[in-house]
Amino acid sequence: MTPSLPAPHLTLAVCDYPEHVPRDRWTRYAEQQKALGLSFVRIAEFAWSRMEPRPGEYEWAWLDEAIEAYADAGLKVVLCTPTATPPAWLIRAHPEILPYDREGRIREFGSRRHYDFASPIFREHSRRITRVLAERYGQHPAVVGWQTDNEFGCHDTARSYGGASAAAFPGWLEAKYGTLDALNEAWGNVFWSMEYGDWAQIRLPNLLVTEVNPSHLLDFYRFASDTVASFQAEQVAILRLGSPGRFITHNFMIFETGFDHYDVAKGLDFVSWDNYPTGMLEFFSSWMPDEIKTDYARTGHPDLIAFNHDLYRGLLKRPFWVMEQQCGQVNWAPFNPLPAPGAVQLWTAQAWAHGADTVSYFRWRAATMAQEVMHSGLLRHDETLDRGGLEVESQDLTAMPLGSVPARVALLHDYESLWLYDVQKHAASLSYWAQTVTYYRALRGLGQDVDIVHPDSDLSGYALIVAPALTLMTPERAAHLEAAAQHARVVFGPRSAYRTVSGRTPEDGQPGVLAELLGAKLLNFDSLRPGLSVRVEGPDHACDVQSWAESYRLTGAETLYRYVDGPQSGEAAVIRKGSVTVIGAHSEELLRAVLAGELRAAGLSPEQLPEGVRLSRRAGHTLLQNWTSQTVNLHGRELAPVSFALEAQA
Amino acid sequence: MTPSLPAPHLTLAVCDYPEHVPRDRWTRYAEQQKALGLSFVRIAEFAWSRMEPRPGEYEWAWLDEAIEAYADAGLKVVLCTPTATPPAWLIRAHPEILPYDREGRIREFGSRRHYDFASPIFREHSRRITRVLAERYGQHPAVVGWQTDNEFGCHDTARSYGGASAAAFPGWLEAKYGTLDALNEAWGNVFWSMEYGDWAQIRLPNLLVTEVNPSHLLDFYRFASDTVASFQAEQVAILRLGSPGRFITHNFMIFETGFDHYDVAKGLDFVSWDNYPTGMLEFFSSWMPDEIKTDYARTGHPDLIAFNHDLYRGLLKRPFWVMEQQCGQVNWAPFNPLPAPGAVQLWTAQAWAHGADTVSYFRWRAATMAQEVMHSGLLRHDETLDRGGLEVESQDLTAMPLGSVPARVALLHDYESLWLYDVQKHAASLSYWAQTVTYYRALRGLGQDVDIVHPDSDLSGYALIVAPALTLMTPERAAHLEAAAQHARVVFGPRSAYRTVSGRTPEDGQPGVLAELLGAKLLNFDSLRPGLSVRVEGPDHACDVQSWAESYRLTGAETLYRYVDGPQSGEAAVIRKGSVTVIGAHSEELLRAVLAGELRAAGLSPEQLPEGVRLSRRAGHTLLQNWTSQTVNLHGRELAPVSFALEAQA
Amino acid sequence: MTPSLPAPHLTLAVCDYPEHVPRDRWTRYAEQQKALGLSFVRIAEFAWSRMEPRPGEYEWAWLDEAIEAYADAGLKVVLCTPTATPPAWLIRAHPEILPYDREGRIREFGSRRHYDFASPIFREHSRRITRVLAERYGQHPAVVGWQTDNEFGCHDTARSYGGASAAAFPGWLEAKYGTLDALNEAWGNVFWSMEYGDWAQIRLPNLLVTEVNPSHLLDFYRFASDTVASFQAEQVAILRLGSPGRFITHNFMIFETGFDHYDVAKGLDFVSWDNYPTGMLEFFSSWMPDEIKTDYARTGHPDLIAFNHDLYRGLLKRPFWVMEQQCGQVNWAPFNPLPAPGAVQLWTAQAWAHGADTVSYFRWRAATMAQEVMHSGLLRHDETLDRGGLEVESQDLTAMPLGSVPARVALLHDYESLWLYDVQKHAASLSYWAQTVTYYRALRGLGQDVDIVHPDSDLSGYALIVAPALTLMTPERAAHLEAAAQHARVVFGPRSAYRTVSGRTPEDGQPGVLAELLGAKLLNFDSLRPGLSVRVEGPDHACDVQSWAESYRLTGAETLYRYVDGPQSGEAAVIRKGSVTVIGAHSEELLRAVLAGELRAAGLSPEQLPEGVRLSRRAGHTLLQNWTSQTVNLHGRELAPVSFALEAQA
Ligand SMILES: [Zn+2]
Ligand SMILES: [Zn+2]
Ligand SMILES: [Zn+2]
Repeated sequence: MTPSLPAPHLTLAVCDYPEHVPRDRWTRYAEQQKALGLSFVRIAEFAWSRMEPRPGEYEWAWLDEAIEAYADAGLKVVLCTPTATPPAWLIRAHPEILPYDREGRIREFGSRRHYDFASPIFREHSRRITRVLAERYGQHPAVVGWQTDNEFGCHDTARSYGGASAAAFPGWLEAKYGTLDALNEAWGNVFWSMEYGDWAQIRLPNLLVTEVNPSHLLDFYRFASDTVASFQAEQVAILRLGSPGRFITHNFMIFETGFDHYDVAKGLDFVSWDNYPTGMLEFFSSWMPDEIKTDYARTGHPDLIAFNHDLYRGLLKRPFWVMEQQCGQVNWAPFNPLPAPGAVQLWTAQAWAHGADTVSYFRWRAATMAQEVMHSGLLRHDETLDRGGLEVESQDLTAMPLGSVPARVALLHDYESLWLYDVQKHAASLSYWAQTVTYYRALRGLGQDVDIVHPDSDLSGYALIVAPALTLMTPERAAHLEAAAQHARVVFGPRSAYRTVSGRTPEDGQPGVLAELLGAKLLNFDSLRPGLSVRVEGPDHACDVQSWAESYRLTGAETLYRYVDGPQSGEAAVIRKGSVTVIGAHSEELLRAVLAGELRAAGLSPEQLPEGVRLSRRAGHTLLQNWTSQTVNLHGRELAPVSFALEAQA
Repeated sequence: MTPSLPAPHLTLAVCDYPEHVPRDRWTRYAEQQKALGLSFVRIAEFAWSRMEPRPGEYEWAWLDEAIEAYADAGLKVVLCTPTATPPAWLIRAHPEILPYDREGRIREFGSRRHYDFASPIFREHSRRITRVLAERYGQHPAVVGWQTDNEFGCHDTARSYGGASAAAFPGWLEAKYGTLDALNEAWGNVFWSMEYGDWAQIRLPNLLVTEVNPSHLLDFYRFASDTVASFQAEQVAILRLGSPGRFITHNFMIFETGFDHYDVAKGLDFVSWDNYPTGMLEFFSSWMPDEIKTDYARTGHPDLIAFNHDLYRGLLKRPFWVMEQQCGQVNWAPFNPLPAPGAVQLWTAQAWAHGADTVSYFRWRAATMAQEVMHSGLLRHDETLDRGGLEVESQDLTAMPLGSVPARVALLHDYESLWLYDVQKHAASLSYWAQTVTYYRALRGLGQDVDIVHPDSDLSGYALIVAPALTLMTPERAAHLEAAAQHARVVFGPRSAYRTVSGRTPEDGQPGVLAELLGAKLLNFDSLRPGLSVRVEGPDHACDVQSWAESYRLTGAETLYRYVDGPQSGEAAVIRKGSVTVIGAHSEELLRAVLAGELRAAGLSPEQLPEGVRLSRRAGHTLLQNWTSQTVNLHGRELAPVSFALEAQA
Repeated sequence: MTPSLPAPHLTLAVCDYPEHVPRDRWTRYAEQQKALGLSFVRIAEFAWSRMEPRPGEYEWAWLDEAIEAYADAGLKVVLCTPTATPPAWLIRAHPEILPYDREGRIREFGSRRHYDFASPIFREHSRRITRVLAERYGQHPAVVGWQTDNEFGCHDTARSYGGASAAAFPGWLEAKYGTLDALNEAWGNVFWSMEYGDWAQIRLPNLLVTEVNPSHLLDFYRFASDTVASFQAEQVAILRLGSPGRFITHNFMIFETGFDHYDVAKGLDFVSWDNYPTGMLEFFSSWMPDEIKTDYARTGHPDLIAFNHDLYRGLLKRPFWVMEQQCGQVNWAPFNPLPAPGAVQLWTAQAWAHGADTVSYFRWRAATMAQEVMHSGLLRHDETLDRGGLEVESQDLTAMPLGSVPARVALLHDYESLWLYDVQKHAASLSYWAQTVTYYRALRGLGQDVDIVHPDSDLSGYALIVAPALTLMTPERAAHLEAAAQHARVVFGPRSAYRTVSGRTPEDGQPGVLAELLGAKLLNFDSLRPGLSVRVEGPDHACDVQSWAESYRLTGAETLYRYVDGPQSGEAAVIRKGSVTVIGAHSEELLRAVLAGELRAAGLSPEQLPEGVRLSRRAGHTLLQNWTSQTVNLHGRELAPVSFALEAQA
């Protein structure tokens, strides 16, 4: 149970913005929230201009009163540091706080997240406002926890392409490499005479004439990630000091890639994330085919949502919160449909089953002003309970006990591999997420619970370890995986170990230090445009391969599947050495077949689930889910469209 | 009859540029123009560098001579202020005249419209050149009227995102709001700590990190619109003084949305607009499906053209001119097909039937230099009469008497509603024009003449009032519409009254102050991606709904159509209270059915017209039009492809 | 035989980068290269930072040693001037060297080609590094030739839109026109008051409010082209002086259009170009339909490759080198498939048959660092011989003797016509390359060898001269073509002679000075969107026309094909006067029919070749090529998929 949890089962919360409504609403809203079954309220997220309307002049009366209203109604309060929205007076006094976009333009005040994480002056104000807030409310009895900032990286803000970041980057490099020779060698700068003779010569990797050096990019991304992490750490340290006994979390964002989440999550008590299933599919999943986007328009796709749950649970390997849960339509995707009836309850139950201890709906009342007036809340603009609110009202929480997710399958995920993969996709139809999520979907389609974890973390509890796209490999990581392969089945996907820690290729060819474990060397890789495919044949079946096909020269492994046409005809496509399998071809069908075999070999029981039907297990229960618009039969039960049932675990 | 009209029927004109051709052509061209049946010639539109080749040095001899040549041939002259093309010497002396684009870049000299309407220095020069021009030619007997500038807003030039506009915007806001508290409240700036503490903190709403506050945008658009209006008013005042008895007009542009045309038209004697039917369809109508673009490639779409005619007739509720009429192919669309044989005559007749007193062809001879060499004229480059010229030669003008358009249907249109709609479309397939034109097309497909008018204007003469997308609602406007509903049928489309005058939503929910009139409150709205639809059922028929579906809680209205599937199943989709109907679902089929009923209820006679066949009435005559490539039968007549016939009105 | 050729048949080479690998590899690699049958190695292309690590401090030891290793193995060395990659110290000392993109942004250091050709300071350093290099290695016995810079214009670098180019452009104009009156008249600046009163008022033609004046653009493109040419000439002069008896070449890039290649090739001993067949189709041929891109994904399209061979052979009308030949997959297209088995041999044989004396593979070992790690080489990263290397090993060179290409057909090509065509395409589906390559493909589909030559060059040897898109016409050019038509058949395509030398249209209409030769004047041109077509009918057959249709008024010519529908129904579409034919309609089918007739009339023998089957002739041999994935029969032989055969010429 995460700190401060009031019940042994799932609890609910809501994001509220008392400063957005007249004061006469505060008591009434708090009482309604309580009556709806909510336990927590998250507030003050974007309220800097109300806390400090003028430099150094604080106004707390309104916030005192608002917290009091929640407390009186029996709600616990989660306070936010308001640093995602520095006020106009601060920006105009210090415009050097503003970030730059990739095109080299200043990103202006007028919305949110308009700051460069590397700005020393912004850091100073971030610490200051955090400190005064912690001083005032850190020990308030109603305040049970803190959210830092809001959605780091959202709107592509983890990185600033100029200004403070440009100034700080060379120093970060000098601290890392010590000498320019070391940097030039690590980056391979000899390639196009890109060698530096002075740290001050090094710029950010944008607005170049042509492609960027991936090593240059990789270090810039690491720099930006470190900068986000140290920003977070500063706030955490201040809050720890000023608010003992309260939890500290941050609400991470869907599929965000601007920083290494494992680093940035360090020091938190638990992780939160913001779950917007329909917007996730429509806006954040460019690789999903249009047909699926239409089929799942009103629910979002179960595996995309589950992937994010499992990803964020895995950051600290601990239960988490959904800090913002869609409860009606969003406003920021190209299309923003109404959720299907039942979707809000299904999302809530799914969140629980994947390890959420608390689900907090966004937001209480739909905003009547500014950017998000078309976004729904639990209340409509007219203060009637909206469709989502009605579903919350009738959700049965006691059936959903806290506890652990019994995953025996680990899926390895690493942000540095993602960065290297995506800077040189080589096949425009692929990306790190597209490849990784395909593996995840195959596992869930086989009925498996999955932990998404860092490749360098403890892997001892797993029977099957899947590394869909572990592009970056180091000797230490290779040794760690070799050890894991002693007790577990291990599956690697395409492009495994293509790159070293500095973003180069291994001097002895791919997969470098992993060659011994895989029992093979890379022969070739093939990038397939839409319409171009090749065929593989294995012991039992054959299928077509899209987008990517790589082949191997065997040095200990045996061939499971072989190409039977195309330029690699006759070469090995899927290989195995002992407990380690490598899948070199991209194909959903191939993946299901190989992974089903591996699951059986690992002593797990794959269960072929129909499209849109899913299982998730927690604390001795299995959540049976129907995400389709038809009634389905599952485990002897009839599940209505967009609904779920709980089954005691066998 | 607009001022200076020489005949009781349609007259013709041409846009000519004597400065583009050798002087030996002037007399010959003028005589040819007269012989072709033209009455007016519009000149000097872009001739600033010839009027004033160096600062303060004017050269009039050439213009004197050119006007003389037209006068000698019996043509009347419409002169233009040349302010759309400030010369190089002015721009280099005062580069601060140049406008900025949305990306924050200066828009350079080298084409046209390179000025910021808010530039005080440009204003001074605009007044000066207008004054000297009026002084010299204001009372010339051949000069019968004036066109100000050219196509305000064309090439997205109504707004400048920097420089002079950025400097002027805060002052405009201060004059409007008086206090920052009032502005912060109106804009809802508390939302993301966007509150201002100093007028100078306020920037233009571009280059933000993420979405713009729609209230910020709305006021910037109003500011820009006011600035265009005051620019126009300055020229009009100078011309009134210096050129008594002459008319003043401006040639507005197709579907232009950069300013409030009702404001900018004030003070003109009559409105003109520039009618390019094929370019309008290919370039300006992104929402029209590709199939229609191909079917009507050689004629343009009748309803798009008619919409613009009716829109511009409605600005001053007065007959108008087509100041530039396509008479061959244009050069600025992705594809620029030759018009179908008969198209030039059909366009001319249609313009007349929708209230044009004069049609002026663009241009006399195809240009042999610069940006528009691929644009046709009445003469080819080789000075032979082109296809369009031949059609003009044989057009029968006497059959087209001047007089009024007998519309009993009003379609309400409001630029502020358009701006609010389009900044938050919520469904990428829709826009204000897309929704509004769909209603207009339905009405024309039912054989109706339509006035497009401002919602706050006199509505007393109409039997049916249609408000397709009246997003912005005020108490005054609501009262005005309530009064109108006493004597007329009124139909509202989706998103009616979603926003208040400051761009927020009503605090009591949509439709705010209109709730009493509609007898309903908004329940939900649903945004449908392509492939996703819902179904509605009414008394007589059922149909599918695309893109948008909203539902209502009834407080006095009754249900006409109801959703029968989807998340709003069972809820009201089309409702009626007395004379007022609300259509919440977007569907051409639904629209035709409901509007046909409303027309009958209003005592009008809907006539179901085949695809591409249209009726337009003026001055006791009905123009029967066939826009298709097949012969059609209509009212007992046979109409050849792309042709028209005149029928005495029943 | 080009200078220094060691054999009477095709020889092979490789691009190598000794500075990219440890020194212990140098001798081994050189010996392997020699053993593989290679004769030359091209080196030092991007090695400026290794030659001159700090300003004025040269380091030659490594290069001495590398050259020695090649020489010892019996390889000849081609040295490059390293000017495509100015080092960081130079850029930071003189940031004014950096070029600007079309959006007005500085293009930064961090990849390559980051210089403005017009920069005087960069010119100085370019001359200096060229001079010291020539001094040191100009008479080295192993050094047989030079490559200047690398791929001028690649990554859109021929033109810089600011900085040094902006400063130099007015002076170039003044030198050309002498007076502003002359410039204003030539550009037609009166059109939109664009007249200049001072040379300093003239800017580059980017970031305008709307369309650019094509005359302004044309002169800017000429200026940029002249600047590239003078940059090249400076290096050539220095190398001539310092390295007597060695050849000088430059490796031009696929379909590059940033400068006039005829000008820039002057002074070279022979031309080279860089042949990447799969990337050429996927990345550089936007006009090719997707289906063809898929069908030829693994070989590239034979006619696109052949077009470039013939184009570059025609620059100096002399055999050429392929300086970089793809020998595996590339890394810079959206998709980068493995070449089909046999493709590397087929490409090599095709290059020979089109006039290549040497084919140099890119590159020896796949790079283990930086931008191109996903690009293949003859060796894999792990130093095993890759698929392409194996094909090189078994290629039979003795069967491919040097000698001339016996083309009797000339296709006229002119960069100024290209620039004018593409700035005003008028039909978005067309472009100069799209139209020109369509004619070329038709000719190759009829079995013809083709010389691509400049319209003003000697045309005396040809039986058929085809001018697919000769937009720009001058009196001198017209006279030259009239003379050619005395002895040869001549075919013109659409848009012939639409423009004068200054980019205006002829004052007497199109085709201006060509009217007498064609026996016709232009009537109209029609731009057809996809889905819109018209039909033409000739003596023998009829067919549909896409994208473009123009018609003529005859003044001596007769009609071959006539439009039978659409607005030009009844008008002439294809005409002939004596030996001169004009094809006004764009249609592959029409083209094949007309060109087959013209070939027969010219005494040549068209041979209808199946899709993907091609013939190329050189030095008494015919290369029979099968580019398809099926076995085909040709001239009594059976050709396996992706293969060729040599036939003695009849
Ligand atoms: Zn949030
Ligand atoms: Zn105009
Ligand atoms: Zn190269």
